[in-house]
Amino acid sequence: MEKSIKVFAPASVTNVSCGFDVFGFALTEPGDELVLRIKNRKGLHISSITGDNGALPTTPEQNTAGKALISMMNELDFKMGIEIDIHKKMPLGSGLGSSAASAVAAVFALNEILEKPFTKKELIKYAIEGEKLTSGGAPHADNVTASMLGGFTAVKSILPLDVFKIPTTLKLFAAVVHPQIEIKTADARKSLKKEVLLKNAVTHWANTAAFVYALMTGDVKLLSRSIDDVIIEPQRAGLIPKFFEAKEAALRGGAIGSGISGSGPSIFSLFDDFNTAHQIGSELKKIYEQINLRCDLYISAVNYDGAKVLG
Amino acid sequence: MEKSIKVFAPASVTNVSCGFDVFGFALTEPGDELVLRIKNRKGLHISSITGDNGALPTTPEQNTAGKALISMMNELDFKMGIEIDIHKKMPLGSGLGSSAASAVAAVFALNEILEKPFTKKELIKYAIEGEKLTSGGAPHADNVTASMLGGFTAVKSILPLDVFKIPTTLKLFAAVVHPQIEIKTADARKSLKKEVLLKNAVTHWANTAAFVYALMTGDVKLLSRSIDDVIIEPQRAGLIPKFFEAKEAALRGGAIGSGISGSGPSIFSLFDDFNTAHQIGSELKKIYEQINLRCDLYISAVNYDGAKVLG
Repeated sequence: MEKSIKVFAPASVTNVSCGFDVFGFALTEPGDELVLRIKNRKGLHISSITGDNGALPTTPEQNTAGKALISMMNELDFKMGIEIDIHKKMPLGSGLGSSAASAVAAVFALNEILEKPFTKKELIKYAIEGEKLTSGGAPHADNVTASMLGGFTAVKSILPLDVFKIPTTLKLFAAVVHPQIEIKTADARKSLKKEVLLKNAVTHWANTAAFVYALMTGDVKLLSRSIDDVIIEPQRAGLIPKFFEAKEAALRGGAIGSGISGSGPSIFSLFDDFNTAHQIGSELKKIYEQINLRCDLYISAVNYDGAKVLG
Repeated sequence: MEKSIKVFAPASVTNVSCGFDVFGFALTEPGDELVLRIKNRKGLHISSITGDNGALPTTPEQNTAGKALISMMNELDFKMGIEIDIHKKMPLGSGLGSSAASAVAAVFALNEILEKPFTKKELIKYAIEGEKLTSGGAPHADNVTASMLGGFTAVKSILPLDVFKIPTTLKLFAAVVHPQIEIKTADARKSLKKEVLLKNAVTHWANTAAFVYALMTGDVKLLSRSIDDVIIEPQRAGLIPKFFEAKEAALRGGAIGSGISGSGPSIFSLFDDFNTAHQIGSELKKIYEQINLRCDLYISAVNYDGAKVLG
């Protein structure tokens, strides 16, 4: 038997200001494409990686997609061979869940080609095994969950894994600017204080409650008031040039909310209108052009589907 | 013009383990009854208070119901006279929002007799002015919001006031035991550490998000996993004799969740079945009888209506 499948797993914005390590949402673009082939030759082989400028390892055990697949193959006691081609169509180290997208694409592809032994939710734990490689060994599920399930997602706990997708009728659009400086997730985590003020923590848990309620009831104004970060953003904003200028421009321009995507340096802004997302996104990009910092811009509807088959 | 109205405002359980200073829910009983009369004689007069063993001041400025009414009368530029009778039908200092119930009953009564110049939500700010008297001057809105609106409620922020009621189709029942020791809210707050671990704060804001999602989707199991407190309960449990024994008995007996009500000493347990609430509530009461500590028991459906007119 030789079969092949091509899949897409989207980039994702996590934390979403109030929900550090909990909330995420998926983008329509960018993301990773991955081709998976079942081969008679045993073992897992990464045939090619494109779009990474040679940065990613092709040894399966050291590659997030490879590691995720190994964990799933072990569980399934999978004896045949697998070959994959990874097409990175998104930046690495951008705060947009690049490693999560690869890990999600890999396990989603194998699951589809095997006619779905697992649900998407069940696949998340295998993807997490892959993503661990880039987060300093600590398991994180926020990017993986958003990329896999799509929409707005929440990680209630990792051990045991307990995640859910927040239903909403809101049609939202994201403008994401990616100034070309690299921040490694593990480094960004190390810089965080281990203690926070109780009163700030209360603000956050009030906001995460309000965030879920606002999405589920379609209350855009409350959603806007909930997207606020008094704990992590003040500690990380200094790592990102012009962060506050960009955020304020976004909010002034009508963004529902704006903040650091994951551990940065990307900055997300959410809108309820595509044209405004496009216009304000372009303005934010100019802020970086004025200081001669290369900056990519992604305008994207929130992706409510998550990982999908391309062919 | 002389008119009168009789109203009821329920007791309330706040924090609900994961949502310190944010979540609350109203009980069907106990609660406060209040009679309000519009009089030609100017000014506000508290004619009588029953059920408080003489503990509460009848000077309006020092009484939570009185203070709340004064704040509302000032806003309305109300020139006529008001007389009230307060019938405390619930314990003071129990962690069940006694002062909030009185303040809510008072402003709700005046609003009803004036044919609703305000919505229930708008009334909350006047009730808070009354409740301030018992919380060491710091405004709190959690008990007031639950008692006024009924159901499960959340306080996103106090300044500005931003509250919402979490819709649910779940029919839930509470067993509340009140061991007869007194804990003052202001004292209980003082004993809390000002800093908390970030990782514990993340657990709480994941749980408050999950709590809202679980109520809104009717997911009792997730609701159960969300009702957990790794920050406040460990610090306060020592003030309540046999707390962990009671909580464990409740959970073993099928409670969805169990924890300290407000700042205690009452302990709430939530059930999806009245008979189980009744049976387990009786078992918890016995735990206190065995150590010769007087203990009241309230078995009550969650009250989805809040403050209401009695006649």
